[in-house]
Amino acid sequence: MEDKVNLRDALAGFDEPFSPRIVGYLNDYKLQVAKTKGEFVWHAHPDTDDFFLVVSGVLTIQLRDREIVLGPGEMYVVPRGVEHCPRSNGGAEILLIEPAGTVNTGDAPAGALTAEERML
Amino acid sequence: MEDKVNLRDALAGFDEPFSPRIVGYLNDYKLQVAKTKGEFVWHAHPDTDDFFLVVSGVLTIQLRDREIVLGPGEMYVVPRGVEHCPRSNGGAEILLIEPAGTVNTGDAPAGALTAEERML
Repeated sequence: MEDKVNLRDALAGFDEPFSPRIVGYLNDYKLQVAKTKGEFVWHAHPDTDDFFLVVSGVLTIQLRDREIVLGPGEMYVVPRGVEHCPRSNGGAEILLIEPAGTVNTGDAPAGALTAEERML
Repeated sequence: MEDKVNLRDALAGFDEPFSPRIVGYLNDYKLQVAKTKGEFVWHAHPDTDDFFLVVSGVLTIQLRDREIVLGPGEMYVVPRGVEHCPRSNGGAEILLIEPAGTVNTGDAPAGALTAEERML
């Protein structure tokens, strides 16, 4: 990372929901900003935890037995192997950290929401 | 992480500067909140990058050839092996992510600012 990243500025650079943009790396982890709107797909990441921090809006991380409701400045780590489905009726902007190579839809069948890794 | 973490609430739980508190893990990385006030020590981490995100206040990360000035919602990753010295005259609150086991003072001689790993 040559220079700092302002999360709000980075998020202002695109509109597409569920299409994370890489803004830097922490060792072999990708630091991504993303927008969420509506419901994602149920999936799990068998090999890694999944870090979410909400920058603006409200993101609900649905788990099979409960919901984690995140507002600005709140973070949650979905443990590896745990099924989850992010949902954000009003829209949210987030920082998402996962190992590089992690597929956003995890073990769900690849589909319209499966995003290629891309830099901002 | 059993439940979500609200960064501001977590930071309200202690006052000591340069004494990071672990609030969760992302795989083998520790997620820490910390307060900074004044100047830290020059050091590098030979084996890892170092992630900083400012929650409140202003943190200046001094590098040998320039300074990175971070306000709320701004993040920077110090590359592995790069000497740096955080400074915050007015005080700042941050999220800090490093591999578990990373010593806060890096390769500098252990001293008063060297902190044990501790949970919030």
